[in-house]
Amino acid sequence: MFSVTVRDHIMIAHSFAGEVFGPAQKLHGATFVVDATFKRPELDADNIVVDMGLAGAELKAICGALSYRNLDDEADFKGVNTSTEFLAKVIADRLTDKIAAGDLGAGASGITGIAVTLHESHIAWAGYERTL
Amino acid sequence: MFSVTVRDHIMIAHSFAGEVFGPAQKLHGATFVVDATFKRPELDADNIVVDMGLAGAELKAICGALSYRNLDDEADFKGVNTSTEFLAKVIADRLTDKIAAGDLGAGASGITGIAVTLHESHIAWAGYERTL
Amino acid sequence: MFSVTVRDHIMIAHSFAGEVFGPAQKLHGATFVVDATFKRPELDADNIVVDMGLAGAELKAICGALSYRNLDDEADFKGVNTSTEFLAKVIADRLTDKIAAGDLGAGASGITGIAVTLHESHIAWAGYERTL
Amino acid sequence: MFSVTVRDHIMIAHSFAGEVFGPAQKLHGATFVVDATFKRPELDADNIVVDMGLAGAELKAICGALSYRNLDDEADFKGVNTSTEFLAKVIADRLTDKIAAGDLGAGASGITGIAVTLHESHIAWAGYERTL
Amino acid sequence: MFSVTVRDHIMIAHSFAGEVFGPAQKLHGATFVVDATFKRPELDADNIVVDMGLAGAELKAICGALSYRNLDDEADFKGVNTSTEFLAKVIADRLTDKIAAGDLGAGASGITGIAVTLHESHIAWAGYERTL
Amino acid sequence: MFSVTVRDHIMIAHSFAGEVFGPAQKLHGATFVVDATFKRPELDADNIVVDMGLAGAELKAICGALSYRNLDDEADFKGVNTSTEFLAKVIADRLTDKIAAGDLGAGASGITGIAVTLHESHIAWAGYERTL
Repeated sequence: MFSVTVRDHIMIAHSFAGEVFGPAQKLHGATFVVDATFKRPELDADNIVVDMGLAGAELKAICGALSYRNLDDEADFKGVNTSTEFLAKVIADRLTDKIAAGDLGAGASGITGIAVTLHESHIAWAGYERTL
Repeated sequence: MFSVTVRDHIMIAHSFAGEVFGPAQKLHGATFVVDATFKRPELDADNIVVDMGLAGAELKAICGALSYRNLDDEADFKGVNTSTEFLAKVIADRLTDKIAAGDLGAGASGITGIAVTLHESHIAWAGYERTL
Repeated sequence: MFSVTVRDHIMIAHSFAGEVFGPAQKLHGATFVVDATFKRPELDADNIVVDMGLAGAELKAICGALSYRNLDDEADFKGVNTSTEFLAKVIADRLTDKIAAGDLGAGASGITGIAVTLHESHIAWAGYERTL
Repeated sequence: MFSVTVRDHIMIAHSFAGEVFGPAQKLHGATFVVDATFKRPELDADNIVVDMGLAGAELKAICGALSYRNLDDEADFKGVNTSTEFLAKVIADRLTDKIAAGDLGAGASGITGIAVTLHESHIAWAGYERTL
Repeated sequence: MFSVTVRDHIMIAHSFAGEVFGPAQKLHGATFVVDATFKRPELDADNIVVDMGLAGAELKAICGALSYRNLDDEADFKGVNTSTEFLAKVIADRLTDKIAAGDLGAGASGITGIAVTLHESHIAWAGYERTL
Repeated sequence: MFSVTVRDHIMIAHSFAGEVFGPAQKLHGATFVVDATFKRPELDADNIVVDMGLAGAELKAICGALSYRNLDDEADFKGVNTSTEFLAKVIADRLTDKIAAGDLGAGASGITGIAVTLHESHIAWAGYERTL
């Protein structure tokens, strides 16, 4: 299995509901360094998994639509705990939609899996992995 | 599949038996930066894999019981080569026991896999991964 | 010159005033990975710059008083742009006060300089350095 | 499953054929930081996955045979796009051959999988994973 | 003293003249991860060292003019060993010119020092630091 | 001022004397990732600070003479607390001696400063800087 990963980041405010979150129930914020991995069993005609430039640009667009916001105020996340692992799934699903829409190039149709990791600090990160 | 990882570290002395270990047969030591990953297919009622604060605290407790010791003198490891990969399994198994005992919270019962990586330097690390 | 550095982190929400900040004028947030460096020309009687455990504990206390908050609502920062470089100074000054108060141990009186770096992402960080 | 990873690097020049590569169609170069991971379900008689020193030495030999070259001029890669993901497979396959030849020691015969990751910058990396 | 650092990277081919360079006398290549640090004793009216977005954009422009090239063929570097430390100076000097030209904003006139570090691998980096 | 840094590591056992060290008074160990930086105001005739290959080889030799040992048993360190900052000075001084002996090449005579940083974990490091 081959893979390619590109990295970007978002900076957001949010709060959590639930005693399990302790002090993180208050409005606070995070930088999430976002790693998006694309997987496929065979390379395409150009000998690559995906156009890395295009993959980076589309990840940047997804990050741009999430960043510099208070996620508590976003319609998409009303009443939802926007945990690191949940946000990893949001980004993985949006990348999947972009592949289906052809935004990562025709060759990207051979991609069979996506994994997204969000690093929230030097001591904690979370991820979501799915097939296509 | 969702995952959450927390990081801590231990600082230990030990030696190895066996020609394959070369100079590491002598008493020496290591810092192991420990990454513990928890996996599950669906998030819990709080939209998380595990209470990250609790996961970090329990990992710290496990690391505390291993750190600042000469592992050659520990009853648990008598006559055992405490290789990086072996120690990764020790920590993964102890985390599994804690989950079974409810120490990571009731929600943690949905965790289906654990992976532990121990970084021994900037050029070498080892790990162990298991299901629950 | 000798130095010792310890690392911790904070997770905060804030916004900025001023066109120069572009989208960061909106309420957003950040993880700041905080590196605090202590410097002195000669080691103390224990052959160290500072008690590393105590330095880490006091840095954690300072970080705890800043973290999981919306800095826009904090009395200390009313009407202030809490830029990364400004926050580095806040933490450096608070560490300096702790040294003066003896909170880092008697040996710490020999510390002559402090530098604090705040990493806000994998591609940006800021710092402040001062003498004591 | 246990794993051990060792890291080395190569510094090469190359160019790519195909519009998808944009400016990278011109002769340029890269540092690839190479992580080679060895996997097996059970440890060997020495309680390890592989002799880490030997694994590092053999990875260094493979890297040495690729590094400080213009890959466009290498007979092995004539007319091939030496993408990061493709080079990860080259290194994984060469390591597999070395294991089969006994170069990683007799104990290494129990290795069941190899994964190789090549980091081309702080924001992009690629890999290849195979069974033995 | 305050500082702000932004990171970008270049990917280039080059060769060196001189026996001291050993195998690096052959055409090869490198990724240089570039850290550009701006320093000043006091913050500007916006409470910052420099507009971080603008600093990143101008560093990207400088990197873009160097990247995806064989430096041996560039008029600027004819007959010059484009060592990592030399390239750090090239980038620091170009950033200095941009500050003088006002490209980093009016507030940037208060910047008194620039440091540039180029990481060529996980085990080697080089830098250049200057006053303005 | 120009600089070049090379990285290596040591793995040692040791213990500390003094209540300030808490649990580290017991025999334990550490991996120290060692960064050695060489500084000079002007580049040499080859346009470099130092022969990076030679600098790496000599650092490796110094590390080799310290690694895979219990420092408590070493004649050089009898009755000495081998703190991270103290060991940084040991390595910086040994590098200085090598430069004086010509082991880093004739060009290295222009080096005016050395800085050594030892990373003992992901959250703590220490250093020593000196002129030549």
